[in-house]
Amino acid sequence: MDHSGRLRRLQAALDDHKLDWLLVTHLPNIRYLCGFTGSAGALLIGERGATFFTDGRYVTQARAEVVGARIVIARKAPALAAAEFLAASPIRAASARLGLEPQSVTVGMREQLAAVLKRKWKLVSAPPLIERARMVKDKEEIRRIGEAIRLGASLFRIARKKIRPGVKEVEVAAAMEYEARRAGAEGMSFSTIIAAGKRSAVVHGRASDARIPRRGFVVCDFGVILAGYCSDRTRTVHVGRPSSDARQIYEAVLEAQLAAIASVGPRATAADVDTAARKVLRKHHLARYFTHSTGHGLGLEIHEAPRLAAGQTQELQPGMVITIEPGAYIPGKQGVRIEDVVVVTPAGCEVLTPTEKELIVI
Amino acid sequence: MDHSGRLRRLQAALDDHKLDWLLVTHLPNIRYLCGFTGSAGALLIGERGATFFTDGRYVTQARAEVVGARIVIARKAPALAAAEFLAASPIRAASARLGLEPQSVTVGMREQLAAVLKRKWKLVSAPPLIERARMVKDKEEIRRIGEAIRLGASLFRIARKKIRPGVKEVEVAAAMEYEARRAGAEGMSFSTIIAAGKRSAVVHGRASDARIPRRGFVVCDFGVILAGYCSDRTRTVHVGRPSSDARQIYEAVLEAQLAAIASVGPRATAADVDTAARKVLRKHHLARYFTHSTGHGLGLEIHEAPRLAAGQTQELQPGMVITIEPGAYIPGKQGVRIEDVVVVTPAGCEVLTPTEKELIVI
Repeated sequence: MDHSGRLRRLQAALDDHKLDWLLVTHLPNIRYLCGFTGSAGALLIGERGATFFTDGRYVTQARAEVVGARIVIARKAPALAAAEFLAASPIRAASARLGLEPQSVTVGMREQLAAVLKRKWKLVSAPPLIERARMVKDKEEIRRIGEAIRLGASLFRIARKKIRPGVKEVEVAAAMEYEARRAGAEGMSFSTIIAAGKRSAVVHGRASDARIPRRGFVVCDFGVILAGYCSDRTRTVHVGRPSSDARQIYEAVLEAQLAAIASVGPRATAADVDTAARKVLRKHHLARYFTHSTGHGLGLEIHEAPRLAAGQTQELQPGMVITIEPGAYIPGKQGVRIEDVVVVTPAGCEVLTPTEKELIVI
Repeated sequence: MDHSGRLRRLQAALDDHKLDWLLVTHLPNIRYLCGFTGSAGALLIGERGATFFTDGRYVTQARAEVVGARIVIARKAPALAAAEFLAASPIRAASARLGLEPQSVTVGMREQLAAVLKRKWKLVSAPPLIERARMVKDKEEIRRIGEAIRLGASLFRIARKKIRPGVKEVEVAAAMEYEARRAGAEGMSFSTIIAAGKRSAVVHGRASDARIPRRGFVVCDFGVILAGYCSDRTRTVHVGRPSSDARQIYEAVLEAQLAAIASVGPRATAADVDTAARKVLRKHHLARYFTHSTGHGLGLEIHEAPRLAAGQTQELQPGMVITIEPGAYIPGKQGVRIEDVVVVTPAGCEVLTPTEKELIVI
């Protein structure tokens, strides 16, 4: 990973945003910039260097992982330790500006930082510089995401075998998660969704104790974290003979998904892709049953920028990795979602998720 | 669960803290107060009632779960929807005070809330009223934690069977996690730690691809989430014949753990329990290898108040459920941790974690 390049580019951008220092507290951003994978850390970045703060639990791990920053082991919250370090540093001008990550720093932490830093320091909300950089993945990142996706794909084969009437949703999830761990996944990227029968209409139907009925859809939405990078994928299968209604919904969602994929490219905005999916579902009178956005970026986190939803003006760029996952959910009846991960290319996009999307009947 | 009682007591306390409304955004606090288990929500509490905001994904789930609050399905972030609801509400006085949870609301969200609410509203950091209430568990909560602990205990049997020289740490973790899911756990309370050989000295040694060596400690630290409540437990076993050094460290940590447990009771502070463990390790010249705190509360979250560490003046009270987990870690060599969960009783405490703690040699 090009940690030093990422850090250097960020340092070069500080001045443009009138920041003397930037305090990075969002853990995936810390990992992105310096490689640390633990659960407690703060990375303080100035024009002339970076210092990483963690606590006593991570002495060995920090020394093994951190690239491009000095390491300080602190006896208090890492962000507070960073503030004390700053408070003891000389300031060139009458006052200095410290950028905070507004989506990561809590109101309580800000109060504590302000108490340590006193008046000479102005705490300001920094723009999402790191999130913007993270939107566009480099080759090594795309390779890792691809590996996570291939592992994820192998889990769907297990789901297909396990899904039978009478089997508990959670047993399907357990078998998939077991295989993921054995294959080296650090964990699942989110709580595995196995939602069968009427529960297929529950958008976030985490695998439950409910048993798979004799007839109906089973939404399988799952992902793994492998070497830090997430995969995400949804397939919906049908147990028993599908009704013509069920077939129609499935075909409509698939058509919407393919239309959305076809719309992806460097000239499209995030909203355009969402519109492409919604337009197809409207044609099939299913638009009002599509109650979430069409997709999201993924990488070190399962949900990253950009967000593919109405009003999102972000232009797509080669190297962005996004999910395309329209769905339709008829409350109390049935639901379908189909999701792939694609990488934006100069010509359009490449679908990273393998295997076909025709309706599988079990 | 006594959701309505919890909400009522909180409502009654608002006036004492000069709050007209309290916006609850920390998801475990929302679950505690109204039962909602999803991942997007905000609970707005006033003297006269409570309103719960969530988004379109959770229509069905909110209706099934939420107790004691009106439900509003919003098209934007739930906290912002709550602010708009407030902005449209009549204010009795010239200004009104809205309490925010300072450990949950980010600087960015606060800026957005302030923009919606304009000047008539004063946004203030509320004291941790809900965290304080959650420290003392009721009978039903202690019962649920007990069930999570019993499920956790059954997983250690699997670890004992799986731990053999040459087996990957992650295979041990995978087998335990599979059984946890099959037995109905919603998930693990944290990333399972299986740290073998030299890695036993890594305090947060998440199960890795490393193989268990022929000789050395294996730290097993794991927990499940069952019906919303967490368990947490550490046992350290030894593969192959332990050296006299290894035995001494193990016995010292066990002695420290038993001393800490003996110190727990309604007259002790959180710091007293930490001191009790540290005193024993000092006697054995191991105090500097004990690099974390002695324990923490647990319940809906794996880490809750109180924190058992130096300087923590919180007095223990009957009904508090806490971990007792001293350890000693010799960098690059070996480490030991032993952890139980106890509930504070009027007379002292009751250990909820079953099974013995003598050194198991595999």
